[in-house]
Parts: sequence; structure tokens; C-alpha cells
Amino acid sequence: MSACTSVAVIGLGLVGGSLSRDLAARGAHVRAYDSDAEHLASAMRDGVVHEALDATLAGVAGAEVIVMAVPVDAAVEILSRLEPFARGARLITDVGSTKARIVATASEVGLGDRFVGSHPMAGGHQSGWDASRVGLFEAAPVYLCPTPNANETARALAGEFWCDLGGRPICMDAARHDRQLAWTSHLPHIVSTALALTLANTNIFRADLGPGGRDVTRLAGSSADVWTAIAHDNAAAIDSALAAAEVEIAAFRRALARTDAAALHERFSAARIWFDDSSRAS
Amino acid sequence: MSACTSVAVIGLGLVGGSLSRDLAARGAHVRAYDSDAEHLASAMRDGVVHEALDATLAGVAGAEVIVMAVPVDAAVEILSRLEPFARGARLITDVGSTKARIVATASEVGLGDRFVGSHPMAGGHQSGWDASRVGLFEAAPVYLCPTPNANETARALAGEFWCDLGGRPICMDAARHDRQLAWTSHLPHIVSTALALTLANTNIFRADLGPGGRDVTRLAGSSADVWTAIAHDNAAAIDSALAAAEVEIAAFRRALARTDAAALHERFSAARIWFDDSSRAS
Repeated sequence: MSACTSVAVIGLGLVGGSLSRDLAARGAHVRAYDSDAEHLASAMRDGVVHEALDATLAGVAGAEVIVMAVPVDAAVEILSRLEPFARGARLITDVGSTKARIVATASEVGLGDRFVGSHPMAGGHQSGWDASRVGLFEAAPVYLCPTPNANETARALAGEFWCDLGGRPICMDAARHDRQLAWTSHLPHIVSTALALTLANTNIFRADLGPGGRDVTRLAGSSADVWTAIAHDNAAAIDSALAAAEVEIAAFRRALARTDAAALHERFSAARIWFDDSSRAS
Repeated sequence: MSACTSVAVIGLGLVGGSLSRDLAARGAHVRAYDSDAEHLASAMRDGVVHEALDATLAGVAGAEVIVMAVPVDAAVEILSRLEPFARGARLITDVGSTKARIVATASEVGLGDRFVGSHPMAGGHQSGWDASRVGLFEAAPVYLCPTPNANETARALAGEFWCDLGGRPICMDAARHDRQLAWTSHLPHIVSTALALTLANTNIFRADLGPGGRDVTRLAGSSADVWTAIAHDNAAAIDSALAAAEVEIAAFRRALARTDAAALHERFSAARIWFDDSSRAS
């Protein structure tokens, strides 16, 4: 049984589609919108979505929970025109990888009392409805970023909502979330993408890589729309993280230029120690 | 049935151990040495190794095939003192990720007629006997780099040897191999390690990352000994590749500094196109 009986999901991509599958499997009534009419039709044929919404989103009225599962720039735009239809909702949330802007927008448009931003750390490089699946959020950390004036009902419901889907909610201030995610998610993503572009420029294909190289470049296969919006939204924090990565690459280059085996060994060893330490949580 | 009936394996780590398991399973007589006496004893208890060699390696005499499965610097050192015991061998090979130096050394020490260097693109970040397993080389590309004067028997046997284990041999000049691998393997490895060090310096643990970030940093868990030797051996080529990666990271930073969504989208899209193109081989 789901924590809520009626949900509106805006966007049926990897996250929104998987969310809808889980909710429908738990007996919730799912109404949804997707800009791709075929994806929406597929989701209805599969019995995952019970009611299609049109682009006005007026049909969200009556849903207990509204979830925006679209790129972070689109979520901000949608939120700013959702207020007239969202008066009956107990919780309005999103799933984006940046949180400060959407949380601020929720307060600005008068939805702050019922808005708790969400960021499930689940997914992968695949995107779109076809990549969605049941159980995506199983054991996934889910950051929850309430507005300053979010009411107790919305806060509690956000926690229950994700717990029901197998997630592990972690409450966090939105600004702190964005600073932290610049390092833990956006930095690895852009480093992986930069490596992919480096190889592309050298006419090396992903099929030429071993299993390790394929892993390092896997995130380069992610949605350009989703990641442009994230990078744009969190640009300053990501830039600082990239600057720190440049320092480490430069240190490798200095050790290589000197063919300094001791310095190289120290660096590989320190990375291995960090890796083996992975069970410790911050 | 194996292409050879008697093999000497020097080094029972991930690659040497897995090799020994496959060979024993195919009925070959496996004699082996490992500097860790416990690993050697485990391998004998498991019935994978039938005869233990001592550190002089004199016991390799009589083996049809000799495989050095140790870090690339150790392989060069071992090869230089193997000649007196290797007179009966039909094939001498290694498994290292750099090839020019070991191939040159084979000729220098008078083993060039029977030396074909090997580099199986298999494995992962784990290392040591405990990580070894049957079937590691299944479907793995295996670069073969013969010396200029390697005889036909040695060349043919090297191909059969790896085919028997499920590998897919690719013949390549050793110098070209090292230049190519600087991009396809060593670059992703060091980028992954540099990212791990960046996160370590910021007190972020691997457990804080999502599934994508964990993939990008997986190679940081590799053996420091193995990778120090590779980086030292192929330093100039790796340095060029890292310089190219720096250019791509700097381009991301410029786009972020300008919060230039169009430039960011172009970069994420180009990486995605490369990713989706992964089925094409060079």
C-alpha cells in the first residue's frame, strides 16, 4: 500500500516512469503528463498511468501528491504555473539533482507550505520511459529539502512517500545539498563526460576500452537536457570542484614528467586507501 | 583441452591466478611461483597449481609455456634472469599493460625467438589471488606483441593459448600498443584515480556517491604496484593523453563560468553521441 492514494506525475522519464510503476504496483491512482504522447500512451497501455493529463496540467487538481520529474529548469517553470491547480495537494515535490532554486521558487509562487524537494540518488545513464523500471529506488538515499515554512504534514508525507518505495530519506538544507552534490554527483559526471570527449576527439570508440574504461565513461551516455540544466543551475559549485580535480590531474602530470615512481605510488596508494574506506559514511 | 600441456605461471594475482585456474581446468600441468607463500599454498590446496616453484625460478625448465603475470617492472627484471631456465620453452609471454619495454628486453636477453608479449583486456580493480576466477578472459580482447624475430611456433602458440581461454587475440606492434593503451586504458585509469583523490581531499567518501559516481571511481581501487609500474613505463604517452583531458575539463569550466547553457548542451550532446556510437570499433 502506498503512503498516498492519488498521485500526479509530470514527466515519464527514467525517474518519473519508475516512480509511476512503483506507485501503480502499490495501488495508487496515477495521473501523468509527458510531452511525448507516445510515452504517455505506452504508460497507459501498461496500466501504469490511469489518467492522462494535458499540457495545461489543470488535471493535477485532486491529486494528493504532485511530483515533477523533469529537468531542473523545466521543473522551475512548471512549478511557477502550478499553484492554481495545486490547492488540494498535501505534498508537492520534484526529483531534480539541484534543489536551492526549486525550493526558493516554491516559496515565491505560494506553494512553500506544502513543498518538500526530493532528490533520489538512483538511476543511471539511461533515460526515458523505456528505461524506467519497478524498484529503481530500492535502498537509494533520497535527499529531502523542505522549504523553510513547509508544514508538518508535507514533511512527514515526503518521508513516507519515499520510504514506501524503498528509499532512505535524508533531510538536508537545499543550499547545502547543492554544494555537496557538486562534489558527489556533478563532478564525477562532468569528469566522465570530459573523458568521453577526449576519447571522441582522438577517434577512440567506447568499444576500444576495457571494462574499466567503459565504467569510467558510462555517465557520458546520460541525457544532455537533464545535465545541461543541472550544470547551469549549480555552475559555481561545480566549477570549484572541477578546479580541484584539475589540481590532482596536474599533480599526476608532474609525477609523470619526472617519471617519479615514488610520487606515482603514493598517489595510487592514497586513492586505493580512499576506495577501501568506502564503507565509512560522512 | 589446452593448447599446451605444461605451463609455468609466475605471479598468482588476479590475472595469473585466473589464468592458472583456467589452465588447470583444461587439464594442463601448472607449475607456479608467487612471492606470497600463502597464495601459492592456497593455489596448491585448490588443485590449481600442481608444482610450486622457488624464487630462483629454475623450475620453469621443462614447461612448454612460461607466463609472467607480475607488474610490468617486475616482469622485465624476471625476464632478464630467465634465459638459462627457458631453453626448452616454446613460448614465453607476459600479461602486462605496457609492451614495448618487455618486448625489447626479450630480444636483448636472447629470448626474442620465442617471446610474444600478451595483454589481456580483462580484470578489474580487484587484485590478488583471492580475486582470481575461472573464465576471466572469456570474450576479452588480448593484444599480442611478438618480438621482430619471434618464430612461427611461438606466434601460433600465443594465439591458440588465448583462444583456448576464450580470449580474442589482436596482433599489434608493441610501440603502437603502448601509444593506443595510453588513451584507451591508462588515461581512464588515471582520471578515475585523480577524481578519487579530489574527493578524498574534500572528505567525501565513496559511500556518499551515487551508482554513477561509484562507477567513475571504481578503478581507483586497483593495485598501486601494478599501476605505478604501468604509469612509469608509459609516462610520456599518458602525459599527452592527460593534457588532452585537461583541455576538455577547461572547456567545461569556461562554459560554466559563463553559465552558457548552449555550450554545455553541445558538450553533453557530443559525449552522448560518442557513447551511443560505442558499437563501432576503430
